[in-house]
Amino acid sequence: MQVIQSVSNPKVKNWKKLNTKKGRKTQEKYLLDGWHLVKEALKANVEVLEIMFTPDYQDYEELYQLQNVELYEITEQIAKNLSATPSPQGIFATIKTTPATTQIPTELTGAWLLLDGVQDPGNIGTMVRTADAAGFTGVVFGTGSADIYQAKVLRSMQGSHFHLEVRSGELMPWIAQFKKQGDPVYGSELNPEAVSYQAVPQAEQFALIMGNEGNGMQAQHLAETTKNLYIPIQGEAESLNVAVAAGILMFTLKK
Amino acid sequence: MQVIQSVSNPKVKNWKKLNTKKGRKTQEKYLLDGWHLVKEALKANVEVLEIMFTPDYQDYEELYQLQNVELYEITEQIAKNLSATPSPQGIFATIKTTPATTQIPTELTGAWLLLDGVQDPGNIGTMVRTADAAGFTGVVFGTGSADIYQAKVLRSMQGSHFHLEVRSGELMPWIAQFKKQGDPVYGSELNPEAVSYQAVPQAEQFALIMGNEGNGMQAQHLAETTKNLYIPIQGEAESLNVAVAAGILMFTLKK
Repeated sequence: MQVIQSVSNPKVKNWKKLNTKKGRKTQEKYLLDGWHLVKEALKANVEVLEIMFTPDYQDYEELYQLQNVELYEITEQIAKNLSATPSPQGIFATIKTTPATTQIPTELTGAWLLLDGVQDPGNIGTMVRTADAAGFTGVVFGTGSADIYQAKVLRSMQGSHFHLEVRSGELMPWIAQFKKQGDPVYGSELNPEAVSYQAVPQAEQFALIMGNEGNGMQAQHLAETTKNLYIPIQGEAESLNVAVAAGILMFTLKK
Repeated sequence: MQVIQSVSNPKVKNWKKLNTKKGRKTQEKYLLDGWHLVKEALKANVEVLEIMFTPDYQDYEELYQLQNVELYEITEQIAKNLSATPSPQGIFATIKTTPATTQIPTELTGAWLLLDGVQDPGNIGTMVRTADAAGFTGVVFGTGSADIYQAKVLRSMQGSHFHLEVRSGELMPWIAQFKKQGDPVYGSELNPEAVSYQAVPQAEQFALIMGNEGNGMQAQHLAETTKNLYIPIQGEAESLNVAVAAGILMFTLKK
C-alpha cells in the first residue's frame, strides 16, 4: 500500500481527470466514488485497478486480501478533491472501461431498454437501476444520451451497470436486429397511432425506447417501432418524469 | 409597474428570504421561479401576489392584464440573486401560502399519497407530479418529509401542487380516518406479511404510504396499514428509487 498526502501528486491529478470524458478515454478507466459502488465492483466480474481510501477505511480488512488491486491511502483533502459530492465517504476505485462495442449480439435475448438521447444523469442512472430490477437483459445508451461513466450516472445506477449488459452506440441497428428476430420494438411517444401500454401483452423479449426529456424520440427511430405506447394521464399533469414512465412501462411489459 | 435595479433593495432582500423555510413562514408566501410555474399559478385558483421579470419578459402582454398582481421589472443580476438555478429564466412570482391545516377532511374521497419522511426534494416533487398524472386526489407531506415550498420541490412538481390537494402534518390521523371509512391503507415495505402489488385489486379510494429513502416507513405507521405491498425484483438491484416505486404502485392500484 502506498500513502499519498498531496493533491498535486501525479496519481491524484490523473484520478481527478477521470471526472471528464476525455480523461476516461485516454486512461481507459473510470472512477467509482463511495463504499456501496466499490463493494458492487468487487462482487462483479470487472477489473478493479486501484482502490483509494482515507484512514477511516483501514478497518476494512477485505481490502488487504484483494489480489491484483493497487491500494492507496489518501487524505480527506484528496478525497474532497476527487469527489463530485460535497461530503465524500472517502473510498474510491478505478475500473477498466470496456472498449466500446459497436457490434450487436447476433442473437438478442430478453428485454432491452434503448435510451434515445436521454440527458439527465439522474434519470439515466435511475432507469438502468430500474431495468436491472425489472429483469431486463441490457440497456443501450443511444448516441446523444449522457455518458455512462459520469459520476452522477454512476451514483444513481447504484452498481446496476455491473448486473446487466450496458452498451452504447447508434440505435438503428439494434432496432433492426429486434425486428429481424420478430420481437416487438416499443416506442414511448404520444402520437395518433399510439396505444395504451395496458393494451399490449407481457413478453419476455422486446425492446423499449425512451426518448429525450424535452424532445422525445428521434423521428427516424419512431418511424421504425412496431408500436408506440402511451401512459394514459388522468389528472392535469402534462407528462410524467421519464424515469417514472420507464419504470411503469418496464414493470408492466416484462413477463 | 415598478422597476427595481439594486440587489440591496429591501423587496429583493425579502424575496430572497423566501428561499428559507423561516422566510416563507414569516412572510406567508413562497417564490416560484420560471415561466412554466408562473403560468401554472396564473391558471390555478391561487393568490398570486407579485410577478417579477427581467426586460426579456416585457413581451408577455398577459402580465399587464392581470388584476391585483404587483408587477416588478428586475435586472438579470437580481434574477440570478433570487434563483436557485445557475441560469434562471428571469421570471418569478410570489404566492400566498395556505395556512397549514392540521384538520383532516371529515370524508376522504379518492386516492391519496402519504409521504412518510421522504427526504429528497427531487423525489418528492416527482411523486406529486406522478400522483397528479395518476388521478390521485391529494398528497400528504407527513412530518419529517421535505418542505413543499422548497425551490427544488417546486421545480420537480412542475405545478402539480396546483392540481391536487396538498396537505402536511402527522400521518396517524389520516391513516385512522381511511381505516374508519373502510378504505385500504397500503404500506410499501418488504416484510414477511407483505404481498405483491399485483395481488391487490384496483380501487378508486385508498391511501398509499411511501417511506424514507434509506429507512423506509416509521414503525408506528407500518403497524397500522391494512396491507403492505412490495414490488417483486427480478434482477440484482437491491431496491427501486422511491419515486419510481411510487409511480408503479400508483398507476397499477388506481382504478
